[in-house]
Amino acid sequence: MTDDRRVYIYDSTLRDGAQTHGVDFSAADKAAITRELDAIGIDYIEGGWPGANPTDDAFFKNLPETKRGRIAAFGMTRRGGRSASNDPGLTAVVNAGAPVVTLVGKSWDFQCKVALGVELDENLRMIGDSIAHAGTVAREVMFDAEHFFDGYKANPDYALSCIKAAYDAGARWVVLCDTNGGTLPHEVEAIVAAVTRVVPGGNVGIHCHDDTGNAVANSLAAVRVGARQIQGTLNGLGERCGNANLISIIPSLMLKMGFETGLTADDLKGLQRLSRSLDARLNRVPDRGAPYVGESAFAHKGGLHVSAVAKDPKCYEHVDPASVGNRRLILVSNQAGLSNLLARFEEIGMEVDRKDPRLARLIELVKEREFQGYAYDGAWASFELLARRMLEDVPEYFKVDAFRVIDERRWNAKGKLITLSEAIAKLTVKGERVMSVAEGDGPVNALDACLRKLLLPRYPQLGDLRLVDFKVRILNPDAATAAVTRVTIESADGTGTRWTTVGVSENIIDASFEALSDSINFKLYREGATA
Amino acid sequence: MTDDRRVYIYDSTLRDGAQTHGVDFSAADKAAITRELDAIGIDYIEGGWPGANPTDDAFFKNLPETKRGRIAAFGMTRRGGRSASNDPGLTAVVNAGAPVVTLVGKSWDFQCKVALGVELDENLRMIGDSIAHAGTVAREVMFDAEHFFDGYKANPDYALSCIKAAYDAGARWVVLCDTNGGTLPHEVEAIVAAVTRVVPGGNVGIHCHDDTGNAVANSLAAVRVGARQIQGTLNGLGERCGNANLISIIPSLMLKMGFETGLTADDLKGLQRLSRSLDARLNRVPDRGAPYVGESAFAHKGGLHVSAVAKDPKCYEHVDPASVGNRRLILVSNQAGLSNLLARFEEIGMEVDRKDPRLARLIELVKEREFQGYAYDGAWASFELLARRMLEDVPEYFKVDAFRVIDERRWNAKGKLITLSEAIAKLTVKGERVMSVAEGDGPVNALDACLRKLLLPRYPQLGDLRLVDFKVRILNPDAATAAVTRVTIESADGTGTRWTTVGVSENIIDASFEALSDSINFKLYREGATA
Repeated sequence: MTDDRRVYIYDSTLRDGAQTHGVDFSAADKAAITRELDAIGIDYIEGGWPGANPTDDAFFKNLPETKRGRIAAFGMTRRGGRSASNDPGLTAVVNAGAPVVTLVGKSWDFQCKVALGVELDENLRMIGDSIAHAGTVAREVMFDAEHFFDGYKANPDYALSCIKAAYDAGARWVVLCDTNGGTLPHEVEAIVAAVTRVVPGGNVGIHCHDDTGNAVANSLAAVRVGARQIQGTLNGLGERCGNANLISIIPSLMLKMGFETGLTADDLKGLQRLSRSLDARLNRVPDRGAPYVGESAFAHKGGLHVSAVAKDPKCYEHVDPASVGNRRLILVSNQAGLSNLLARFEEIGMEVDRKDPRLARLIELVKEREFQGYAYDGAWASFELLARRMLEDVPEYFKVDAFRVIDERRWNAKGKLITLSEAIAKLTVKGERVMSVAEGDGPVNALDACLRKLLLPRYPQLGDLRLVDFKVRILNPDAATAAVTRVTIESADGTGTRWTTVGVSENIIDASFEALSDSINFKLYREGATA
Repeated sequence: MTDDRRVYIYDSTLRDGAQTHGVDFSAADKAAITRELDAIGIDYIEGGWPGANPTDDAFFKNLPETKRGRIAAFGMTRRGGRSASNDPGLTAVVNAGAPVVTLVGKSWDFQCKVALGVELDENLRMIGDSIAHAGTVAREVMFDAEHFFDGYKANPDYALSCIKAAYDAGARWVVLCDTNGGTLPHEVEAIVAAVTRVVPGGNVGIHCHDDTGNAVANSLAAVRVGARQIQGTLNGLGERCGNANLISIIPSLMLKMGFETGLTADDLKGLQRLSRSLDARLNRVPDRGAPYVGESAFAHKGGLHVSAVAKDPKCYEHVDPASVGNRRLILVSNQAGLSNLLARFEEIGMEVDRKDPRLARLIELVKEREFQGYAYDGAWASFELLARRMLEDVPEYFKVDAFRVIDERRWNAKGKLITLSEAIAKLTVKGERVMSVAEGDGPVNALDACLRKLLLPRYPQLGDLRLVDFKVRILNPDAATAAVTRVTIESADGTGTRWTTVGVSENIIDASFEALSDSINFKLYREGATA
């Protein structure tokens, strides 16, 4: 067991993370991610497997310069019955030009026999030879012991002899891999403790997968009993259930367990940005509930919670959100209490006396509408309109006298079956009766087009309004096509501001119209338009 | 420490899970989820907080009958300076009619002073009085010790005295809550071990949140040192980063740690279905990477892994996928596609020669349509129709010449704004040109009514056809109201058979019509109707 408090972080996003279903990094992606990992202070950045595919070859051919992190080339120990210097696969890895070489090999007797068909002794030589050979070229060499935990359970002596062979051949690190991801934390703790009696903890690493939902805990358990390197990926990317999520692990190490990493406290504040940047690159919706960095990670909903957090944040926050670059979020909801409302009003700059008797009516109204199916905790703009209409004067920018939407499926002149949607709307805008018609892809799109056609000449402020998301949820599916529908619309404008509105009705057209109308009203109110 | 291997599972999806951002259960949702939890063998089902909101009141007013699980009503201990029998909040909870009452109270001295402003002694009396009072009415009472771990770290004696007060007052369980979710597994292990020296482990439960990504590991750690109840939610629903995910915990307990729960090995095979059913209800995309139940949890990419798995699954699978109702996924090649098709044909009793050249065309067609947005994974009836139309003769039961749907919002004679939907359809049925008009709640409901009106006299087999579920998913949300929509419809008939069909279009009306039409065609084909 080592007393050293420094834990080394090894990122495998670009190699093991690239195995994720639907993930496909370009060489340019890899270079950009490498620069971000380097900038925040990750110690090792595994770039890929030289020789395995054109993308990885392109990456290693043009290695990005790093200041704080070392790039690792990943590969396999030599094949059976061949010398290390005469194995083309191994040669490609060792000579790829990376300062670090990481070689994976077997440590489970069953795997040697079944998957590889190699004698146990020859496997030990494959490990030792390959590590020694890599050490003649690379600055630093490590050994990833595949299936180490299953191997240790089946045959502890043999598993230990595999990592000993790597260590004795000069590996700076031996990394224990839970390849199938099935090992539980108490097993990791016991087995890593046994390993550190053979190889010093300062030379032992851990590599976990999340197949039981314990990859983070397994990584922390290994460090607690002496391991000093953790391999994982950003946002837990990786095949099956993913690898250990470094974004969750790093703050626990630094903020809770008293360990040091390559990140300073200031670097740690860039953690949310690092996580989001990967999502943006992969065009993934960030996980709201991600530990530490998720949008909801410091969100408060229940009324009691909110009033307690206002008194002292540590009542309901385990760390300061700012320490990982996150922030507190106050939600409005079914559990709506006065404190939620007041906190929310403060955020949007509404001054309301907490003794105002209309507040109780507003809370009742919110509850009643949530019972009908409205959900305001995402749709703040609709909530704000509701509140302002009750507590202030919100102009009536337009009044809908009538609308009609027609969806028609028919055979066109070319004998093709087509469906056309057309909307007619009649409004009163600034005292004037106006009407128009517009076509669209589907009824809601047509209605949207018609409203804009009528409103834009009277409210040029709407010129940069865009709808960026549209969601439909059926609230009582048992009623099938007669069910109550909730439509949520997210809008944005030229300033980059985004807002969300909600509509509920048995009629999906009605619900959509309500959410559309709220979105337009919210934008006009924000712009200070006059009716 | 107890030797008993039975662990009790307490589901809080309907209460703590309802705090999730964007989650809003109706009373009907709650009843349906209760039935599913009961059917699989969950021991305790927390239904909500009587008196807190109209939804929970509606649920408790009409409690679903359960066979294996007990429904719990959740609430708070009495207020300071008031008797337990004279506290309206507590009364509403205790008298809600649930067999189990779970009361939450403080156990952190800091919380008593800051959040509650209550003396430490009075807090102990609040706990004891409330538990004793609840015990006079409910069959079983438990105490959720809020902030127990933070409380124990700050003042172990006081934290222990709080749970002792509950236990001595007759609580069947004292449940240690990591309310802020910031406690790490090694801390949970040490603190729960200390607790079991004061309260027998067989009476101790654990309630974790996932703010550090360790909720699963924390729950398992507590059980390892003697706790025998785990509180959590399906799919880890819950505010901030979510509660402990029961879907991940239960298989590890049963398959790896040698514990028993209320689930049999056969029940466990329903775990994936339970998880998916909740996602479907919430219209959430299931997490591919979810431990045990995710679509990718047992996915293998081509090459080495696949051939090793073929030799022996334990090379790359930590448990048998079937044990939790999941299956191995070999990521698709044309050949794998063929085996999937043939397996499916066998299930539905279609005899197809595996060398039939039309099979390759069918695979291409399925891939092409899935690329457009169709998802045949759930919609087997639409898939079957597609396959039978290509490989066999499926009669054309009706042909749609045209339809038109009109949604009109206008002021009615009483000055109320109403929206009416009306559908007109023109079909050719059994050689005859027919047309009609019908009204409905929304465009799809109107279209459904119109089709039935036209078809039922010609196909009396449709008399018992019911639509039981209707789902809408927007596939490319960035396109907002012009986005591509997938509509999935579940149907049932008098025999209890259920089938699901799918439609995809930029126009939601078109997509709905396609799914409706498939449903009717499927029913007629199954009944052997003639056109």
